[in-house]
Amino acid sequence: MSRYQGARLSTLSPYTPGEQPRDAKYVKLNTNESPFEPSEKAQKLAAEAAGRLQLYSDPTCRVLVDKLAEVYGVDADEVIVTNGSDEVLDFAFQAFCDEDVSARFPDITYGFYPVFAARNGIPYETVALRDDFTIDIEQYFGVGKTIFIANPNAPTGIALSRDEIEQILIHNKDNVVVIDEAYVDFGGESAVPLIKKYDNLLVTQTFSKSRSLAGGRLGFGIGNRELIADLHTVRYSTNPYNVNSMTAAAGYGVLCDEDYTRANCRTIIENRDYTTAALRELGFRVLDSKANFVFATTPAMHGADLYAALKQNGILVRHFDSPRISDFVRISIGTREQMQTLVDVVEKLLTEV
Amino acid sequence: MSRYQGARLSTLSPYTPGEQPRDAKYVKLNTNESPFEPSEKAQKLAAEAAGRLQLYSDPTCRVLVDKLAEVYGVDADEVIVTNGSDEVLDFAFQAFCDEDVSARFPDITYGFYPVFAARNGIPYETVALRDDFTIDIEQYFGVGKTIFIANPNAPTGIALSRDEIEQILIHNKDNVVVIDEAYVDFGGESAVPLIKKYDNLLVTQTFSKSRSLAGGRLGFGIGNRELIADLHTVRYSTNPYNVNSMTAAAGYGVLCDEDYTRANCRTIIENRDYTTAALRELGFRVLDSKANFVFATTPAMHGADLYAALKQNGILVRHFDSPRISDFVRISIGTREQMQTLVDVVEKLLTEV
Repeated sequence: MSRYQGARLSTLSPYTPGEQPRDAKYVKLNTNESPFEPSEKAQKLAAEAAGRLQLYSDPTCRVLVDKLAEVYGVDADEVIVTNGSDEVLDFAFQAFCDEDVSARFPDITYGFYPVFAARNGIPYETVALRDDFTIDIEQYFGVGKTIFIANPNAPTGIALSRDEIEQILIHNKDNVVVIDEAYVDFGGESAVPLIKKYDNLLVTQTFSKSRSLAGGRLGFGIGNRELIADLHTVRYSTNPYNVNSMTAAAGYGVLCDEDYTRANCRTIIENRDYTTAALRELGFRVLDSKANFVFATTPAMHGADLYAALKQNGILVRHFDSPRISDFVRISIGTREQMQTLVDVVEKLLTEV
Repeated sequence: MSRYQGARLSTLSPYTPGEQPRDAKYVKLNTNESPFEPSEKAQKLAAEAAGRLQLYSDPTCRVLVDKLAEVYGVDADEVIVTNGSDEVLDFAFQAFCDEDVSARFPDITYGFYPVFAARNGIPYETVALRDDFTIDIEQYFGVGKTIFIANPNAPTGIALSRDEIEQILIHNKDNVVVIDEAYVDFGGESAVPLIKKYDNLLVTQTFSKSRSLAGGRLGFGIGNRELIADLHTVRYSTNPYNVNSMTAAAGYGVLCDEDYTRANCRTIIENRDYTTAALRELGFRVLDSKANFVFATTPAMHGADLYAALKQNGILVRHFDSPRISDFVRISIGTREQMQTLVDVVEKLLTEV
């Protein structure tokens, strides 16, 4: 750090993203990417947009926002698009929390929530997941804080039902509830249908997982139009041209190919079921996942050792050196061939222990 | 605003970007875009990257950063790339200012500085430009604040020399000086060569103007490696994948075509000289610009009226309804044909007054 660093920065612990190696070929199952190429229409429209980059992008992203509204059955002013869903989450911390309205989220969840809170000078508290890694929704009733829940949760993959989300909403009439649905397309129940009924609900989603646009950086929020207007206030005070022209075009393109997205999700679900069954067969405990990853642990090896042994064998997964979950590894679901390779390597490793 | 809005947000006045009309054909001289297409290599590499979007972008943007370091004659750890230069400026406010270290910048300058300060809860003060719209550098000596200076300044276009920037650096040994060089490629003197000598200097630039990538959103900062490390701390606490894969590829591509960029800049300078002379011939006061725009006023019409009359005639320029400059319009420099059209329309309007 420089001697010029401001006071706020000096205590900040940044987020650590998963490894993105450029130097070797791995079976890459560590950052929950899709194994499938972006839709052809997305690729084509993005390439065309590359020829017009001398002009600023549309700060309203009108074409993309209208299409999102159509696909999700909401109005355009109930939608905001951002530079990845990290950005809409960051905006939500800035819009709906302050020194007096703190944030509450699970102790085991997306690791960026405490970082967003800290960077924005927002107090937060965490609530322990139950021993089985499920969320006790009553811990979020009437707490007078802004609530952030990833559903399905990460890195556990466990999902709450829409009814359970609705219970949280009913018990927080005076507070915003943010449901982070980055992984909802792989079998979860989206809370989007509840936005017309609850003005305190913000749902965030991403194009990075089910829609194969991780490298394009596109996220969005859907909620009551007054909540969305607040997020636009933050956006226009941060970076009005936050989504570039190529990504906006790619996002529109992929939304025109919803059949492709749905087919890919079905394949991921099948491959997840295969992987879960195969690992359980090998003695693993695998949490019930509704996401494009599984969270798994074996009594035969510590999580850190399993991570290292897999990497040694050309397979990247993710290990979190955190309380309660350091015995686990998170394994992204790829193609059937990739998952077969994983299972084969795991089986080999277990015989060597 | 919603009833859930946090306290900080309620007093925020967001930045107002220039109009980006999608519904009509204008001679668009209002947001300082380049009239030239992105380099062919940039377009080609961006289109290729669109085919690999299922993978996250490289959070280190290694290929792009290495190329920038090569082009600017600095080390890779003296460079940071961001989602437009707005983002690196925002990061600088967060990294080098706090409640106790406030910001200082001119009263007439890039309108986003006060917005960044306000959103981040940072106090700031402005210093009046002289009556001739030049910056009095002594007003920035030894003030114990973080200094932000656009050079060339916007919307005046007037530039300080590198020697004057160095004087500001010498007189701020204990404070960071941010030189925002968004428009430096059109005849200004860059402060980049000073970064090895002054550890308190951060230079920011953009690919939006001289490099024809406004719609791609790419900015960068160059400075002492400790300053850059501080900015990375903010980046990894905000959005580690802040630059998408297509934009990183396009940025690399355009840096491989520096001859094209330089030729375009020469053309813009010629067209600026032509426009300046023609408007002066018509009785305008035109400030001496080193940017890809001119700031001009005529005794014959108020700035708002001139803006409206030009729009009526199919030409978009920018008018700022702000103290001291409301008589002016800012005219981006486009092709010779576009500038000829502007001059012809202005001449026609003046005869009608």
